[in-house]
Amino acid sequence: MGEFELIRRCFLQARQGPGVVTGIGDDCAVLQVPPGQQLVVSIDTLVEGVHFLPGTEPSRLATRLLGAAVSDLAATAATPAWLTLALTLPSGDADWLEPFAAALAQRAAELGISLVGGDTTRGATLTLSAQVHGLVEQGQALLRCGARAGDRILVSGTLGDSRAGLETLLKPQAVDADRAWLQQRFFRPEPRLELARHLRPRLQAGLDISDGLLADLTHLLNASGLGATVDCARLPLSPALQRIFPDQAEAWALSGGEDFELCLAVAPDQVTACQAEAQRLGVPLTDVGEFQTREGLRVRGADGRLLEGLHQGYDHFKEHA
Amino acid sequence: MGEFELIRRCFLQARQGPGVVTGIGDDCAVLQVPPGQQLVVSIDTLVEGVHFLPGTEPSRLATRLLGAAVSDLAATAATPAWLTLALTLPSGDADWLEPFAAALAQRAAELGISLVGGDTTRGATLTLSAQVHGLVEQGQALLRCGARAGDRILVSGTLGDSRAGLETLLKPQAVDADRAWLQQRFFRPEPRLELARHLRPRLQAGLDISDGLLADLTHLLNASGLGATVDCARLPLSPALQRIFPDQAEAWALSGGEDFELCLAVAPDQVTACQAEAQRLGVPLTDVGEFQTREGLRVRGADGRLLEGLHQGYDHFKEHA
Repeated sequence: MGEFELIRRCFLQARQGPGVVTGIGDDCAVLQVPPGQQLVVSIDTLVEGVHFLPGTEPSRLATRLLGAAVSDLAATAATPAWLTLALTLPSGDADWLEPFAAALAQRAAELGISLVGGDTTRGATLTLSAQVHGLVEQGQALLRCGARAGDRILVSGTLGDSRAGLETLLKPQAVDADRAWLQQRFFRPEPRLELARHLRPRLQAGLDISDGLLADLTHLLNASGLGATVDCARLPLSPALQRIFPDQAEAWALSGGEDFELCLAVAPDQVTACQAEAQRLGVPLTDVGEFQTREGLRVRGADGRLLEGLHQGYDHFKEHA
Repeated sequence: MGEFELIRRCFLQARQGPGVVTGIGDDCAVLQVPPGQQLVVSIDTLVEGVHFLPGTEPSRLATRLLGAAVSDLAATAATPAWLTLALTLPSGDADWLEPFAAALAQRAAELGISLVGGDTTRGATLTLSAQVHGLVEQGQALLRCGARAGDRILVSGTLGDSRAGLETLLKPQAVDADRAWLQQRFFRPEPRLELARHLRPRLQAGLDISDGLLADLTHLLNASGLGATVDCARLPLSPALQRIFPDQAEAWALSGGEDFELCLAVAPDQVTACQAEAQRLGVPLTDVGEFQTREGLRVRGADGRLLEGLHQGYDHFKEHA
């Protein structure tokens, strides 16, 4: 079977969604943005040997790729709409493509996003790029700028789990319930779409935590022209993380990366309302610190003292040399 | 310099264009589609060792990547608007990134497209994906379906040059003017944006020739439910191609791929008007055959007889094994 036929067979099962005038199979997809809405777009790449281990099941790659990409839409408080893929595969292998396409179609349906186009090429290194397109009411996109001194730093979910899940893959042992849950956190990010949309009117600024809390918070501080202090004692740590990796839990929560939780700037008088809304949606939302006028990012240890010389996050070129 | 800083320095020079509400540097770009317009999108990938030779100058990769991607917008008769990039680089090397970004910025400005976001990762194989976003009046996107029996097959420019340019790179010798021109055709595709937009009201269907005339025409036939006959004697061949590769010229014009010219379906009584308009724009537009009710794609040789067993085009998995 040739490229055209294989791709067609695997991906034409993807559903046609709202606003798709012409989907897969033409030179371009033709899409209808509803009146009063703005388009938000983001592109993300996963590379074998850098973001995942060689031999990873294709279905896990599909959920990882899509979760990470759609998380950027959540970070903008947007509603997912359309997806395009650029896949570079070592071989045109149905054993890989079929389970990948099936898992992708299922996860895309769950997240409300429609595959509308793509490009598949051969290449030595398995490389997967996803561009996501979302919609947001005119002027309502959540951005990194806009935090104010005195705003609280809220984070959704728990932090450090994804890094812990990776660790259990790097140093495999028997996979108990905790390790399976941590691996799920790595392979199946849950974009906080509902949370972001519901909280949007109460938020000053926000982003998703892909590079690690400290690194991403630094982006937010740079964009907003502020400093901040984070309290380690307040970091939301999952029971599984604390049980399996008690010694690394705090460091990974600060700098582990790829948690795909939200980091939000909220006025102090809105914190309680935000937390009540989050509770209603079943998502923890934890106050971990404060935005401040004084520049720089400070981290207060569990003993109340400021920590020094922290690694600020994930940098592909430094970390994976 | 870390990833963030390097990328920022290289790509923030990209211009902010119309409709860019929030560009590079947030979780998503926020974009404004004007009322009455539809969004068209396409994604394209170049992989080292598959689409270009190792060691190719980064500036040439920038023009190749952008030309090929924007050609899909031309094929839809759309106006270019926004660009996102997914780059996978073997190293975070300023010697590569800076000339790439500079050439990209210049070519993007020429083509009227604004870089609004991207993702850069490390990986063993240099892999470049570009997603282009264009705008088209409601319902006016040029599609592959809609050709009718009796319509003429028109192609823009000359065919086979890009394949010839690649050949001069694969078997290097002294680069004379002809070879330099053919290489330019490979590295600097010229999307037929103006031509497509001007001819749009007279066109039934169309696409761009990326996989080779026969392969792409087959896509058009499948989408339109038709057959066709192409006359080899009418194929537009450049003087350079005929001088340097007289024996391969016809085969490459039929199946060489990556010409990024347009293949259009035009009613017989509109051909003269289309050609006059193309001449005004300085682009050859050649009638190479006819759409027919009878299924299948037939090729008539220069001697008037139908050819058999032609290779229909470019297939990554077959061709680059």
